[in-house]
Amino acid sequence: MKGIRQLADHLSISTGTVSRALNGKADVNAETRKRVLEAAEKLGYVPNQAGRSLRQGVTGTVGLILSQDASIGAGSENFFPRVIDGLQQALSRHGLDLVLLLRPRGEKQDEFLRRMVARRIVDALIITSTRVYDPRFPFLTKSGMPFVALGRSETSRPENRWADLDFEGIAERAVTRLFERGHRQIALAGPRPDANLGALFLKGYRRGLDSCGLTFDPDLVFQSDGQEAGGYEIGSRILESKHRPSAIVLNAEMMSIGLYRRLGEAGLTPGKDLAIIAERESPVGRFLSPRLTCFRIDAAALGCSLGEMLLSTLPAFAEQYADVPRQQIWPFDLVEGESDPPLQA
Amino acid sequence: MKGIRQLADHLSISTGTVSRALNGKADVNAETRKRVLEAAEKLGYVPNQAGRSLRQGVTGTVGLILSQDASIGAGSENFFPRVIDGLQQALSRHGLDLVLLLRPRGEKQDEFLRRMVARRIVDALIITSTRVYDPRFPFLTKSGMPFVALGRSETSRPENRWADLDFEGIAERAVTRLFERGHRQIALAGPRPDANLGALFLKGYRRGLDSCGLTFDPDLVFQSDGQEAGGYEIGSRILESKHRPSAIVLNAEMMSIGLYRRLGEAGLTPGKDLAIIAERESPVGRFLSPRLTCFRIDAAALGCSLGEMLLSTLPAFAEQYADVPRQQIWPFDLVEGESDPPLQA
Repeated sequence: MKGIRQLADHLSISTGTVSRALNGKADVNAETRKRVLEAAEKLGYVPNQAGRSLRQGVTGTVGLILSQDASIGAGSENFFPRVIDGLQQALSRHGLDLVLLLRPRGEKQDEFLRRMVARRIVDALIITSTRVYDPRFPFLTKSGMPFVALGRSETSRPENRWADLDFEGIAERAVTRLFERGHRQIALAGPRPDANLGALFLKGYRRGLDSCGLTFDPDLVFQSDGQEAGGYEIGSRILESKHRPSAIVLNAEMMSIGLYRRLGEAGLTPGKDLAIIAERESPVGRFLSPRLTCFRIDAAALGCSLGEMLLSTLPAFAEQYADVPRQQIWPFDLVEGESDPPLQA
Repeated sequence: MKGIRQLADHLSISTGTVSRALNGKADVNAETRKRVLEAAEKLGYVPNQAGRSLRQGVTGTVGLILSQDASIGAGSENFFPRVIDGLQQALSRHGLDLVLLLRPRGEKQDEFLRRMVARRIVDALIITSTRVYDPRFPFLTKSGMPFVALGRSETSRPENRWADLDFEGIAERAVTRLFERGHRQIALAGPRPDANLGALFLKGYRRGLDSCGLTFDPDLVFQSDGQEAGGYEIGSRILESKHRPSAIVLNAEMMSIGLYRRLGEAGLTPGKDLAIIAERESPVGRFLSPRLTCFRIDAAALGCSLGEMLLSTLPAFAEQYADVPRQQIWPFDLVEGESDPPLQA
């Protein structure tokens, strides 16, 4: 078992360079990194945990907590991989590795978090899928473990760091756009209102209705899990409803696959017979017929910013990232598709 | 900072129970687990790394290496989450946690692996996206780090453990089925032949052609990345080709979204004008029109088996899992859809 000094002696380069190479820093050239990794392998290098902990924590890793059901599923195809890209970009500057901690199906969010914190697998955490009431914020604050959240919560405190997406804004804009295109019966599909996303989506939807002078009708609000089967089921419910909406706003583009299928089975044409706008832009929506009108976000930039936010909570990097805002809400851009043509009289 | 003994004293329960609760074992009741985790939090429990290492390695975690591009993308929606389910099921029996290590975009497979091994983030590894020639097998064998592979390789050794999917078998069966339904011009879309999946898919395809007495035509083999845009592009190439195939076998169901779109733009109907069979069954294929004919696999059982295979490589559990086979090839079931009707004369 050798340490950094033995590796450095063996290679006749400085311990600083060896350390930077092992930690994957960008300022070490590829050839040197290769030599260091080869020597580390050959000599049986074992990191000096004590030295590392002084600098950056015990493990040198940051954990991103994802739930199996929600986050690696179909709807996230473009979102989480890109957020992760951005996170890795920020963290790798300082030799920190990102690991993904997947909450097993059936284990509760709060319990899984407690277990991960108790086991000290990582030095800092990024939590996702926030809820309106989310005890993870006070729990982590109390635990002393540095963290940031992707998603806001009523339970977060002013000192907590989070970045969120402007779900409220897109629901409002989608309603306004559909109104301008002639629609008066506009439905909404969103997750449960105790999820942060669900609450914000509903709030923006109601604000959009208000600004257009439309009345809120609870029968036009559908709860959904954001998947294909959920879209299919909403299609069935729309077909059975007395006051059939002429447009719908979906919180997840994967739903459109099931909804398109259900409309087709009934001899209806998506877009023409039911205008559809969905959050988020992805290849699925781009290649469906009709192409989805949807909202796009720069998920890699969001991830990078979230990474910098997390660095600002770590003692070793706090000064360098002192200017990073504590809270951020990221806007979406509308991407015109073929799925929400003006209503034909 | 307290250890297991202090926690046990505080709670007046045995150190064994505390340890089992912290390690998430199933035989500790929920109430006790909750009490232990709360006490661990309150007293500031820090695991005894030395004690742990004797039993199960330094970190108590197993890493699943995935590549950003290939594995969390759309095509894997149902596959990797379920494999992970199964893996967690096997590993959690022994208090081992699974973490996902995502190879950053742009970093080479081999280099990322060397870095992960050198940094000792995990005690054992599961590698994926194997190649026909894959230096990771000899590298890991030499490193002494316990590992299993999801996917085989020409470079693997008899003592290496792997589980793979029967890609060869499904390509062959798809060709035979299409032949029986009247097709004689059967195309194939698959990844690069240096990928394990690509090589096996091509091999099975050729075997299927042989058994049906059809001649291999390299113009009917398309290379693809398995995504929507790739399916769209193959659609364009099929439309331009002189000897247009009447059927195609796709290696990834997400491609069908782009292919359906491209055929629709040309006024053609998927299924009727081009029969399609795809690997793998997923909600996307289930809700497309026409519904995809595809192949299904029990990914959770595969994951659990892979987890047991990994446990058999760890000294602490080798005896208990001595009967687990070293190599396994998992079969698929055909799922009848609407996308490959008999060819109409």
